[in-house]
Amino acid sequence: MINKKKLIENILNQPPINQNTEIDKKKTLAENWFVNLRDQICNDFTKIEYNFKIKNNNSEKVTEVKSPIFTQKKWDRDGGGGGVISIMKGDVFEKVGVNISTVYGKFSDKFKSQIPGAEKTGDFWASGISVVAHMNNPFVPAAHMNTRFLVTGLGENRKFWFGGGCDLTPMLPDKKSAIFFHKNLKSICDKYNKEYYEIYKKWCDDYFFLPHRNEARGVGGIFFDYLNTFEWDMDFNFVKDVGKTFLETYSKIVDERVDQKFNDEEKNIQLVKRGRYVEFNLLYDRGTIFGLNTGGNPEAILMSLPPNVKWE
Amino acid sequence: MINKKKLIENILNQPPINQNTEIDKKKTLAENWFVNLRDQICNDFTKIEYNFKIKNNNSEKVTEVKSPIFTQKKWDRDGGGGGVISIMKGDVFEKVGVNISTVYGKFSDKFKSQIPGAEKTGDFWASGISVVAHMNNPFVPAAHMNTRFLVTGLGENRKFWFGGGCDLTPMLPDKKSAIFFHKNLKSICDKYNKEYYEIYKKWCDDYFFLPHRNEARGVGGIFFDYLNTFEWDMDFNFVKDVGKTFLETYSKIVDERVDQKFNDEEKNIQLVKRGRYVEFNLLYDRGTIFGLNTGGNPEAILMSLPPNVKWE
Repeated sequence: MINKKKLIENILNQPPINQNTEIDKKKTLAENWFVNLRDQICNDFTKIEYNFKIKNNNSEKVTEVKSPIFTQKKWDRDGGGGGVISIMKGDVFEKVGVNISTVYGKFSDKFKSQIPGAEKTGDFWASGISVVAHMNNPFVPAAHMNTRFLVTGLGENRKFWFGGGCDLTPMLPDKKSAIFFHKNLKSICDKYNKEYYEIYKKWCDDYFFLPHRNEARGVGGIFFDYLNTFEWDMDFNFVKDVGKTFLETYSKIVDERVDQKFNDEEKNIQLVKRGRYVEFNLLYDRGTIFGLNTGGNPEAILMSLPPNVKWE
Repeated sequence: MINKKKLIENILNQPPINQNTEIDKKKTLAENWFVNLRDQICNDFTKIEYNFKIKNNNSEKVTEVKSPIFTQKKWDRDGGGGGVISIMKGDVFEKVGVNISTVYGKFSDKFKSQIPGAEKTGDFWASGISVVAHMNNPFVPAAHMNTRFLVTGLGENRKFWFGGGCDLTPMLPDKKSAIFFHKNLKSICDKYNKEYYEIYKKWCDDYFFLPHRNEARGVGGIFFDYLNTFEWDMDFNFVKDVGKTFLETYSKIVDERVDQKFNDEEKNIQLVKRGRYVEFNLLYDRGTIFGLNTGGNPEAILMSLPPNVKWE
């Protein structure tokens, strides 16, 4: 049975890396993939936004629909690296942010003990992508996806692994989208390891939970970390599949719900539900707290927060 | 020079309490005061709300103005005690919450080591009031006030102290209200100890700060804790003066700004600024994190969150 402790032990037991070029190649491949995936996501989401505008305007105006598109903002990290935030605020996507980043440097003494392979020198390199979509129509669930590749340590003792996941947050009860989302995630998990889905689903459920409300953030998805089976290409393919499957599945969920009529009461339920999303991210999310505590870019980290929120 | 370490030492060095009745009397006096102050606050804020409605309707309709008034909600705490939340949502006060509570029981092992006098048995008793006002007009600052009386330990070894403070958060630059607020706080501090204002002001500035944004939550005020000079009546009077002065001062600030015209852009600045308030409360506020971690009532704890918020 896969569990966190065994996964970390596994990473620490990885044999020495013989060639520096080997890990450099992996870093480049991963980083390029995250850029590529970002482009696919922005492209597909822009199409959804355009199609909606076209349907809701006169179809002869198609060629005039020029905005909104994603605006990009480059940022640098004190200490090494940086990233690019892409944000679109439209009629379908009330706010969607896609952040890619490649950062490196040394963890502080406080943090290095918590990161496999970084215990001695604190050296790390990390590249990843994260997506958070808050939708205008309360019948369209919000969604989140994140994948990353981490390398820690120095020289032949370097350790590396993938992490990530995706999850769905319907604002109003929506069993159909939950079933569809999980079915597709299970399919790709099963391609790699029959144990993955059940374990990663549970990991996700345990993680995206608000103890003070005794409620789940959404309907879950999958969440994985410390992924290194010693077959890098296979692990990388899994990570790519998570990204692609998320994009296809979520796009379909959006398409099917975006024309549904909603009223003020339903919109209000969405705004209040978004408050739970904020509570989770600021009170519990490891990435948020870790990022803000290690001098991360607050704009990139807090990109996940919804555009409009209500607390009653 | 007063500092946190000395204040805690002072509390721990307090001589044994000879009569149980003595501390019971103090508890009752404190608890009654918080109820009394709550009533004064709700009364004065309701008047402001009514006066605004009257001015902005036809004056002959005065007697018809019946709502909004504060709605009250009683809550019980698992483990002992409870409280009452009073909330008003009006035209001046977009959302104002006043919570009074008296809770008691045992701190968990994790927390008892952090609380003077609770180290051995974990026993505590706490009574207090907290007020958070989020205003409709962006020219009216948001405000927060909280005072409390704590008793820890058992029998003659019990320790007790007051804590609290108040602070102001203008949404748009407003030097005048900051100066007025601080002037009035300094006056009452000076009545008790010439050192109080400077120390409590600094404590407040240090506390209400968002490191990830490198910005202050507002323009500060005063913040104090572990207050026990061994002259209980004097300390209690100080706490009462903080409550009364806050109410008078803030009411005046509201009155002077409530008729100022504002536009969508100014309202938008307010909604974004409120996001910082949420970030502070969920990421850093000791009371919030402590409360949620010790099984406190989430509704009472998160009463402080603004009604409408934006993240851009």
